[in-house]
Amino acid sequence: MNGRDIRAVILAGGRGTRFWPLGREARPKQFLRIAGPDPMLLDTVRRLRPLVPPRRMTLVADAAQTKKARELLPRLGREAFLVEPEARNTAPALMLATARIWLEDPDAVVAVLPADHLIRDKIRFRRVLGAAAEAAAREDALVVFGIPPTYPATGFGYIRHDRSKGRRIGGVVFYPAEAFKEKPNLALADEYLASGDYAWNSGMFVWRAGVFAAKLERYAPECVPAWNAMIEALRSGSAAKLRAAFASAPALSIDYALMEKARGILVADGDFGWSDVGAWSTLLEIWPRDKRGNAARGETLALDASGCLVWNPGRLTALVGVRDLIVVDAGDALLVCDAAMDQRVKEIVEGLKKRKKYRKYV
Amino acid sequence: MNGRDIRAVILAGGRGTRFWPLGREARPKQFLRIAGPDPMLLDTVRRLRPLVPPRRMTLVADAAQTKKARELLPRLGREAFLVEPEARNTAPALMLATARIWLEDPDAVVAVLPADHLIRDKIRFRRVLGAAAEAAAREDALVVFGIPPTYPATGFGYIRHDRSKGRRIGGVVFYPAEAFKEKPNLALADEYLASGDYAWNSGMFVWRAGVFAAKLERYAPECVPAWNAMIEALRSGSAAKLRAAFASAPALSIDYALMEKARGILVADGDFGWSDVGAWSTLLEIWPRDKRGNAARGETLALDASGCLVWNPGRLTALVGVRDLIVVDAGDALLVCDAAMDQRVKEIVEGLKKRKKYRKYV
Repeated sequence: MNGRDIRAVILAGGRGTRFWPLGREARPKQFLRIAGPDPMLLDTVRRLRPLVPPRRMTLVADAAQTKKARELLPRLGREAFLVEPEARNTAPALMLATARIWLEDPDAVVAVLPADHLIRDKIRFRRVLGAAAEAAAREDALVVFGIPPTYPATGFGYIRHDRSKGRRIGGVVFYPAEAFKEKPNLALADEYLASGDYAWNSGMFVWRAGVFAAKLERYAPECVPAWNAMIEALRSGSAAKLRAAFASAPALSIDYALMEKARGILVADGDFGWSDVGAWSTLLEIWPRDKRGNAARGETLALDASGCLVWNPGRLTALVGVRDLIVVDAGDALLVCDAAMDQRVKEIVEGLKKRKKYRKYV
Repeated sequence: MNGRDIRAVILAGGRGTRFWPLGREARPKQFLRIAGPDPMLLDTVRRLRPLVPPRRMTLVADAAQTKKARELLPRLGREAFLVEPEARNTAPALMLATARIWLEDPDAVVAVLPADHLIRDKIRFRRVLGAAAEAAAREDALVVFGIPPTYPATGFGYIRHDRSKGRRIGGVVFYPAEAFKEKPNLALADEYLASGDYAWNSGMFVWRAGVFAAKLERYAPECVPAWNAMIEALRSGSAAKLRAAFASAPALSIDYALMEKARGILVADGDFGWSDVGAWSTLLEIWPRDKRGNAARGETLALDASGCLVWNPGRLTALVGVRDLIVVDAGDALLVCDAAMDQRVKEIVEGLKKRKKYRKYV
């Protein structure tokens, strides 16, 4: 079903401080060359190209990130960039992007794809995307890509589905979603993993524009005034009206605003080697490692060192007698962090924000 | 006895790779600003100034290091710099420096002082030096500064002396040396420390030029031909003869060539807060530390980190969840090392020397 009119909505506005000191406010994860030789945003666009031509792509981001994205993607036309009037979480952004497509064609299939995820098996990914478009169109469903969990992650939301109710569409298995679950604690994550009836919520969605509108109306009525205002503002072409419409939408995630409440959700089996690349230590599973488990960008000599991740391209790094460290030299700032504690890097960034003399490092 | 004619011979030719990546072949320890705000060589000269005027100072180093030393010490006259014709350990260098002084005045007192040691109590140091000059002159002795050991060091040679035989000269206690001991293993070092009859060999010596010549003749006859050749070469002013004379001297340390064999050696009690600053971790005892025991040059944020030493001036360093690390960012090269393993930094340098593409980091 690759012939179907898939519109890709790429969420390119992600922020985050987990890749500090390489990642900065002005250089978030999707612009970093950490998962491969190119920025993840570029990988995201390239991965879609065989299925979605550039004119059917929409990149959603704030003004500053849009500027950077346009430099990175000079072949995308100006109309491909949809600037968020303000940061209001994913529900308003996806309502706006879907509304714009709905005005063109309510039957168009919208695929929502974060710009900062790693997908190892691109061919399988496109197969799942094509099948999801088919399923979304045929069954008037909201489709979410569920990732088969490989460990009891506490950093992702989960989707419960009934393994016995899987159906194949276009070579891909789809399950009816039974419940969306927030990030669990470790004991619960263990249960989820053991049961086999849970998938990670990847944040990738597929829906027809008109179906999205109908589901909003039925399951998220508090969003409907903003939706209607957006449609009206887009029709009028008034930036001020659009800003007001956007500001009137609840500042919620799409999961919270719609997916957790809606019925008629299908979970696509996202078995394409996914990672959200959520922190420095996840790169230990992505980059090639030496026989001691060290992974490095930049010349690195390891003497009795193991399990370390080094980012220091163009310079030399020597590790002596150290274990399980994250070492990141960003030129003006250096991080040395226990790999098991890389979630705490954001505390460093919070600390930097509090002092004027450190603001330049944020 | 500060009025006595003390000639300082500063050994400024030290090499060493223990402070890599800050220390390089072309930038050895005595030129680094690691013990204080100035290079250690400059501290060494300044510390002597109240007792030894510049015209009585001789800096011994190879041609390249002499060039750097002259830039650092523009007030020292050209004649203050004695260039070693080749690297041949300390015995030939000290024979040459002492021979030059002997030609001027065999009664002159020579004080041999490495350029890369830290001395906390400068006033006490000068007192010990003055008293040692007095003792060396009065008793025709070779004087060595013995450091009261504070832990069972395995990285220093020791000198055995009899505590009960101490005598005061100029407010300083001197003991007859009984034996020079090579670097011990830990068990032996424990014994030395417990006995109270051992001092660390600091490598600082005081002797009259003529006494040094006489001791060489008696206890190191294999050095005498080279000594005589040096005297002759210095008299002739022939650089070629000097080079040949130097090359004919045994390439030994002065400890091995003379001190271990000679009699009539006095150990001065070097209670002036000495450190040889032998490796990065020694700076943990020298630099101010925060309440978690971290010591840093350069802005450093520590989150659940302790016992770390950071060299990263002008840049920001963040430590998260790490313990007892040495972190040194030298711009083109970065070291992250377990503090207990900093002796192995030289292995890194050996590894760098073996590969052409890494030579620039040596």
